[in-house]
Amino acid sequence: MAEKVYFYHAGCDVCADAERQFVENLDKNKLKIERVNLAEEPAKRAEAEAAGVKTVPAFVIAGKPYHINFGANLSDLK
Amino acid sequence: MAEKVYFYHAGCDVCADAERQFVENLDKNKLKIERVNLAEEPAKRAEAEAAGVKTVPAFVIAGKPYHINFGANLSDLK
Repeated sequence: MAEKVYFYHAGCDVCADAERQFVENLDKNKLKIERVNLAEEPAKRAEAEAAGVKTVPAFVIAGKPYHINFGANLSDLK
Repeated sequence: MAEKVYFYHAGCDVCADAERQFVENLDKNKLKIERVNLAEEPAKRAEAEAAGVKTVPAFVIAGKPYHINFGANLSDLK
């Protein structure tokens, strides 16, 4: 079964670029990706923070955060 | 044809973890990944730097750098 992972972003250019290069290219047979726009869904910021996400864009895979480049701080989305 | 991309690392724990979660899960039909250990192949550091890589682990896709978390600065590998 594909593993559920999260891609957190905020609609920024850096986020969109990471989404294109990683989300689009990950093997959908292995990973089931849920995309979460924290600028539009601020209520989900707590779950991102709980997984250790500090900046977006970031993936959470197996409960661990993987920050890709730098788009925005989570704290700036508050 | 699969696009050629590079995964630069230095054999560090953060690198190995990123390799497991991203290199292993990227769609091999879309991307052809060359793994380069800059600690073992310092001569390749110039090509990484030319693409904008500042830290490892990092991917270079379509000529652009994607830094994942933080393992080591390229300058510390010199």
